[in-house]
Amino acid sequence: MDAPIVTVLNGPNLNLLGTREPAVYGTATLADVERLCASTCAELGLRLEFAQSNSEGGLVDLVQACRGRSAGLVLNAAGYTHTSVALRDAVVAAELPMVEVHLSNVHAREEFRRHSYLSDIASGVIVGCGVLGYQFALQRIAALVLPARPA
Amino acid sequence: MDAPIVTVLNGPNLNLLGTREPAVYGTATLADVERLCASTCAELGLRLEFAQSNSEGGLVDLVQACRGRSAGLVLNAAGYTHTSVALRDAVVAAELPMVEVHLSNVHAREEFRRHSYLSDIASGVIVGCGVLGYQFALQRIAALVLPARPA
Amino acid sequence: MDAPIVTVLNGPNLNLLGTREPAVYGTATLADVERLCASTCAELGLRLEFAQSNSEGGLVDLVQACRGRSAGLVLNAAGYTHTSVALRDAVVAAELPMVEVHLSNVHAREEFRRHSYLSDIASGVIVGCGVLGYQFALQRIAALVLPARPA
Amino acid sequence: MDAPIVTVLNGPNLNLLGTREPAVYGTATLADVERLCASTCAELGLRLEFAQSNSEGGLVDLVQACRGRSAGLVLNAAGYTHTSVALRDAVVAAELPMVEVHLSNVHAREEFRRHSYLSDIASGVIVGCGVLGYQFALQRIAALVLPARPA
Amino acid sequence: MDAPIVTVLNGPNLNLLGTREPAVYGTATLADVERLCASTCAELGLRLEFAQSNSEGGLVDLVQACRGRSAGLVLNAAGYTHTSVALRDAVVAAELPMVEVHLSNVHAREEFRRHSYLSDIASGVIVGCGVLGYQFALQRIAALVLPARPA
Amino acid sequence: MDAPIVTVLNGPNLNLLGTREPAVYGTATLADVERLCASTCAELGLRLEFAQSNSEGGLVDLVQACRGRSAGLVLNAAGYTHTSVALRDAVVAAELPMVEVHLSNVHAREEFRRHSYLSDIASGVIVGCGVLGYQFALQRIAALVLPARPA
Amino acid sequence: MDAPIVTVLNGPNLNLLGTREPAVYGTATLADVERLCASTCAELGLRLEFAQSNSEGGLVDLVQACRGRSAGLVLNAAGYTHTSVALRDAVVAAELPMVEVHLSNVHAREEFRRHSYLSDIASGVIVGCGVLGYQFALQRIAALVLPARPA
Amino acid sequence: MDAPIVTVLNGPNLNLLGTREPAVYGTATLADVERLCASTCAELGLRLEFAQSNSEGGLVDLVQACRGRSAGLVLNAAGYTHTSVALRDAVVAAELPMVEVHLSNVHAREEFRRHSYLSDIASGVIVGCGVLGYQFALQRIAALVLPARPA
Amino acid sequence: MDAPIVTVLNGPNLNLLGTREPAVYGTATLADVERLCASTCAELGLRLEFAQSNSEGGLVDLVQACRGRSAGLVLNAAGYTHTSVALRDAVVAAELPMVEVHLSNVHAREEFRRHSYLSDIASGVIVGCGVLGYQFALQRIAALVLPARPA
Amino acid sequence: MDAPIVTVLNGPNLNLLGTREPAVYGTATLADVERLCASTCAELGLRLEFAQSNSEGGLVDLVQACRGRSAGLVLNAAGYTHTSVALRDAVVAAELPMVEVHLSNVHAREEFRRHSYLSDIASGVIVGCGVLGYQFALQRIAALVLPARPA
Amino acid sequence: MDAPIVTVLNGPNLNLLGTREPAVYGTATLADVERLCASTCAELGLRLEFAQSNSEGGLVDLVQACRGRSAGLVLNAAGYTHTSVALRDAVVAAELPMVEVHLSNVHAREEFRRHSYLSDIASGVIVGCGVLGYQFALQRIAALVLPARPA
Amino acid sequence: MDAPIVTVLNGPNLNLLGTREPAVYGTATLADVERLCASTCAELGLRLEFAQSNSEGGLVDLVQACRGRSAGLVLNAAGYTHTSVALRDAVVAAELPMVEVHLSNVHAREEFRRHSYLSDIASGVIVGCGVLGYQFALQRIAALVLPARPA
Repeated sequence: MDAPIVTVLNGPNLNLLGTREPAVYGTATLADVERLCASTCAELGLRLEFAQSNSEGGLVDLVQACRGRSAGLVLNAAGYTHTSVALRDAVVAAELPMVEVHLSNVHAREEFRRHSYLSDIASGVIVGCGVLGYQFALQRIAALVLPARPA
Repeated sequence: MDAPIVTVLNGPNLNLLGTREPAVYGTATLADVERLCASTCAELGLRLEFAQSNSEGGLVDLVQACRGRSAGLVLNAAGYTHTSVALRDAVVAAELPMVEVHLSNVHAREEFRRHSYLSDIASGVIVGCGVLGYQFALQRIAALVLPARPA
Repeated sequence: MDAPIVTVLNGPNLNLLGTREPAVYGTATLADVERLCASTCAELGLRLEFAQSNSEGGLVDLVQACRGRSAGLVLNAAGYTHTSVALRDAVVAAELPMVEVHLSNVHAREEFRRHSYLSDIASGVIVGCGVLGYQFALQRIAALVLPARPA
Repeated sequence: MDAPIVTVLNGPNLNLLGTREPAVYGTATLADVERLCASTCAELGLRLEFAQSNSEGGLVDLVQACRGRSAGLVLNAAGYTHTSVALRDAVVAAELPMVEVHLSNVHAREEFRRHSYLSDIASGVIVGCGVLGYQFALQRIAALVLPARPA
Repeated sequence: MDAPIVTVLNGPNLNLLGTREPAVYGTATLADVERLCASTCAELGLRLEFAQSNSEGGLVDLVQACRGRSAGLVLNAAGYTHTSVALRDAVVAAELPMVEVHLSNVHAREEFRRHSYLSDIASGVIVGCGVLGYQFALQRIAALVLPARPA
Repeated sequence: MDAPIVTVLNGPNLNLLGTREPAVYGTATLADVERLCASTCAELGLRLEFAQSNSEGGLVDLVQACRGRSAGLVLNAAGYTHTSVALRDAVVAAELPMVEVHLSNVHAREEFRRHSYLSDIASGVIVGCGVLGYQFALQRIAALVLPARPA
Repeated sequence: MDAPIVTVLNGPNLNLLGTREPAVYGTATLADVERLCASTCAELGLRLEFAQSNSEGGLVDLVQACRGRSAGLVLNAAGYTHTSVALRDAVVAAELPMVEVHLSNVHAREEFRRHSYLSDIASGVIVGCGVLGYQFALQRIAALVLPARPA
Repeated sequence: MDAPIVTVLNGPNLNLLGTREPAVYGTATLADVERLCASTCAELGLRLEFAQSNSEGGLVDLVQACRGRSAGLVLNAAGYTHTSVALRDAVVAAELPMVEVHLSNVHAREEFRRHSYLSDIASGVIVGCGVLGYQFALQRIAALVLPARPA
Repeated sequence: MDAPIVTVLNGPNLNLLGTREPAVYGTATLADVERLCASTCAELGLRLEFAQSNSEGGLVDLVQACRGRSAGLVLNAAGYTHTSVALRDAVVAAELPMVEVHLSNVHAREEFRRHSYLSDIASGVIVGCGVLGYQFALQRIAALVLPARPA
Repeated sequence: MDAPIVTVLNGPNLNLLGTREPAVYGTATLADVERLCASTCAELGLRLEFAQSNSEGGLVDLVQACRGRSAGLVLNAAGYTHTSVALRDAVVAAELPMVEVHLSNVHAREEFRRHSYLSDIASGVIVGCGVLGYQFALQRIAALVLPARPA
Repeated sequence: MDAPIVTVLNGPNLNLLGTREPAVYGTATLADVERLCASTCAELGLRLEFAQSNSEGGLVDLVQACRGRSAGLVLNAAGYTHTSVALRDAVVAAELPMVEVHLSNVHAREEFRRHSYLSDIASGVIVGCGVLGYQFALQRIAALVLPARPA
Repeated sequence: MDAPIVTVLNGPNLNLLGTREPAVYGTATLADVERLCASTCAELGLRLEFAQSNSEGGLVDLVQACRGRSAGLVLNAAGYTHTSVALRDAVVAAELPMVEVHLSNVHAREEFRRHSYLSDIASGVIVGCGVLGYQFALQRIAALVLPARPA
């Protein structure tokens, strides 16, 4: 049987990763993040799909495409985290476990970043761990969708 | 004279209708809804345009396209109902009667679904009546744009 | 078997319909509304009961009287919509489907009219469609309580 | 000397007790509650008056009638608890100790049930103890209006 | 021509005036208030109608009865001031000038008494002037409905 | 014995009365108001002092000057009503009855005009009665500071 | 079979009972309360455990100790009522019926005392009945954990 | 050396300028605005880029494209002003001065238009000056990015 | 005909301009600002009046003095922007176009600076453009009060 | 070298000290306070300036006059504490340490007295210590502006 | 007669004083503070008790121990200031004057530090004066509990 | 050199892990969690310290003990997360990286669990990943305190 697919989706401005506000978001690029996710998936026995979009509707499309095909979703929705009911609805409709990731500590920034439309429907929320957060999210998905591994 | 056009627009995730959370949204597909609207329009003496988009900007484009061409708008904006000022502005700019429709009872769900950016500029709001709501909305539009019929 | 009863209840000041603020509520009188409801019920295969009261307790009594006798309730609670927990409790206790109707668009008026104690327990909410809203509500009730009709 | 009168007043929908939402309110009827109160009063050396009304004004009338005649008031105002300043004013005007009773745990239900217009003027608030709450309330009244009994 | 009718309506618990919390409401009874209003009306060239009700719906009925018959309304809605949309709607529907009166200073009491559903639709609000407030209200009505008198 | 002094103080922009927004404030000038107050005082057996200031500190000075000299204060603080704790403190320090007056109906205008720093320390609040409000306020002061007159 | 244990826990400053603010809390000492609870338990067929702690963590320990050993909990958490999520969590974890008791009427005191972290998970809330409240709470526990007694 | 580029971006529905609600937005079209900006830039020694998009993601793309290429940004984000964190993040990431422009006076319209996600990161906010606002914004950008000119 | 007068008014602490917090307000003094305004007015065909006051009442006086004499008002009310209803009322009473100016970006400072009592009655709001903001405001006034100039 | 100047400024109504509400503010007059401050300054090696004003603008002037001349400011802004951004701005602009003093305990009075526009920019806040608070404030200023003294 | 005891209590993390965030709290250790308090008490004719606890319950115990033994309490409750109703209740129960002290300026830090459960029951609040604040508090206590000293 | 110490602290009720609400918290016991953390630390080259306390003060003590000895802190403060400023202050005073962990998804439970006093001072927040969250937290600490490892 094929390894299950896990989809990692990145929201607006994450294409600028590594150059945008490095003090906040670090120096790794999105390509670096994809490579890290790929090697983590390989270790875990998962197949990686990885995408980024600046568009709310584009992210909704990407989440819908997971339905019935991916086994789990890692979602860093960036700015849409705080404003998008449409994305939340797409995740619920996709009926698969989703882990929410934020590179920076959203709780230590502007007040409006402390509210997320995604957290209460997530199977895990990883905040402020930098790119390591993607690895954690993939491990969390693996624990949920793969047969139990020895702890 | 040609029958007036009425445009029925559907927002994000409504393309999944019939498969997404059937306990909430029912089992009719969006194609079923379109057929229902078509037959209702035929009865009422209206011409139907029917579209769906997952994109906020896409919906703004679709609403703008109604301006000076459609006689009325039936709008189920789904998740954008609660978050989109842009869509509200487009509806006002279109200068035609709009009826807001929601399949599920938005008042019985999460607190954030109780606020709509569209309701106060609508010529009617139909909530929680399932697909029947589209029929009601078309009848409301008909009552507004067609010569008076006997009640 | 007798046709099921559907009860249409009207709240305070609706006895003035047709004379009170016609710009907001239209020129049809409550007797006109009753006639419209009667003919709609006849078409749908329902028996109509129709009443109005200016009293909150009177409306509670009327709702209680539906219990175990009516098959559905159409409720335009007017001013009590926004203030009456007693009426809400009566509707829940009556254990039958209720559709909430407002003639005017309550969302386009004073802020306090945007909250309803009835909406989240309703099987449909019809706002701002004028007297047509009663017809829609009766059709919604019919769809819920009558054997399925071809759409 | 005659035993002091204590008045037990019940608000809207409590006439349905035993049939309305038994999971929330239990299976005892209001007649059962009255019998329970009567026997409790007999034991305590009080005379019982017992009434129910669905009307806010009716309850105001009943509370006013206690003034200068009853020694204490047990009040389950049901839905009016959360909305009636008129009833609060009547209780203050009656100038006698009042104990507020709720059968169900109002704190575990909708948010709006957590506010009461009566609690801060009560000589006791008994919530969520079912019909036993009436007994407790009568005992509390007895302790306030009867000569001290051995504990 | 007959003198214009002015209707003075009193809300819940005002029947207890003179005995209820005299420190707050004074020692004049409602009959005293009626006599004062009668003599004031006689001086002003108005005919007085005077009523009291503990019932919200009863007050709605009384306000409706003014429509097309009274020239002005003096309204001390007591506890319903802060909770009744139905009464507000009745006043608007009556289409005559209304002056809101409160015997006590509602701003110096509980916080919830600082909001009124009536004030923004009133032709005057008189607060905390005791029974004199009724006289002021009648004078205000007179100024609005009678031909101009020398100041 | 000399007639008691009553001081009528007017806040910012009231010097423009009669020319400023006549639809809101009427066409009487402040001099007209002073004349009206003078004749009312003469009738009531009071001596009038009348002043206006655009300055918050100026009004504080004027209120302080009443202390131990005036018997009562009629205060139309205009814009400072809603913002001045200093003026409130001055009124409390003056230790004399104060009646708050507003020409227009502050409850029917911007939301921020519904809060007053003066109302809860007033012996009466007269709103929306135009210049008649000054007369009412003087009568209220007279009732408080003069020996009782036959009603 | 042994009588079931019921544990009565008292929070901070209740060790001062009888001396602390007697106007608010009465003159009975905590030892008096314990004696009253003991005799009530004896009558009801329950075994009493009774403790007090000024420490939030100490109360958490005491609640945990009930788990699997006590049949019910009477909890007067005093100041921690309004601030302790830890105590709430302990009660939920203990998996036994809990009745919340307050000697004074918390609704008639500071605003912050109107919120409780315990009420919505309680099997009864008894407020403002003085030491009698403990008796009521024990009776409520008895009704929940003992075989049904004749009413 | 080439003149610095300044980018003028326009948000949703601004393509309808001149036809949409002319009472609010004026009669100039977006092409008129572009011509005005072009001539202003020419005078100031700037090169103009000018774009419009109805899509939030599209605007994010356009802002990102400025990074390292444009010297400044004039942004009329229309409806997205009040709802888009994604756009705010893009502007911060672009690391160039941004001036926020609104044709109409957003403070004089719906309450929700008084909050902007862009204002606190702007180098200037110009509201309610019509198309002149674009000229002001360009002058502000010029003052920030060009060598100092004599005032 | 004489050139129209435009009045530029400056609020509290602006007399310290150039020395007070230069990082926030820049190094230009108020005399510099006046010179800049004078030359701008000369170019635009306007006559300048320029004043500053630390007093709220003083500013009210200055605004009143514009009535019927100035053609427009440029108002930097500094700290009174956020607290003065009196000043707002004076501007409305003056019946001339007013443009609100702030040197610094009030949206990027303390939360309380984001609310202005002046913005919704302004014909333009210019924020965070330094002294250039005065020029923009004068141009906006010119566009409103002078015969149309070629764009 | 001359002793440094410390300026003690007193806000509205403090000129009434000793006569105004002695239960709240004590019986010492402002002259008493000045004498106390003078002797304290003499002991500490400071020169005292002492002033009072009822005017917000007057206080702004007085604070501005400290700039570059006084070494520290003791400020009891009384009612302006809660409402004046202008005064706050003046203190920041003065660039010297300021200690806020209140004679009474502002936290134990009306809710609106719990917010101060001055506290977060103060080098100390002394509340509810009566006239002793001025001494404490002067000592705090001394500790900040004089060479270190042995504790 | 023995000198009266004054108890100085320090809350959580104050044992770290001098090492913890010296920029916020200064370099004096808690032992230094104790020495300073001891010498101040010696001068004032008071006996010092001095303690610290990291435990809320421990502080409640310490406050209770003051009852009937100490003449006054100086309380720096640190983090419990903002969260402890239990501590507030203990202070009220102790029935002795309490002065609240904070080393740092709590108003200039996180928003949640602006609320104290202790301030409104204090006989003085000293904020942001560093260790000097303890001296001020002891002087305030002395003024309240010792026979009057010459000012 | 010894491996750096990392301290894992667990708050109230976590000693019940595995038995308390397994549907929410899972079936692993705290001993299981300790074993998992020990093996993870061994792999990462860290030394583990592991403790639990039901007491807020006890946790403050434990955090203080880390200062200058541990290299990092993993903190699952359970109920104190939402209520303890004291614990927050202790973490800041400890001056070492802290990662916040919650076993359950706090965002999907009661509203009050969505606020944490710890998140904005954390170097990572891991929510809703069960015991795996501890592993992630240790990895995050390792990444911060150990020399860089190949990704």
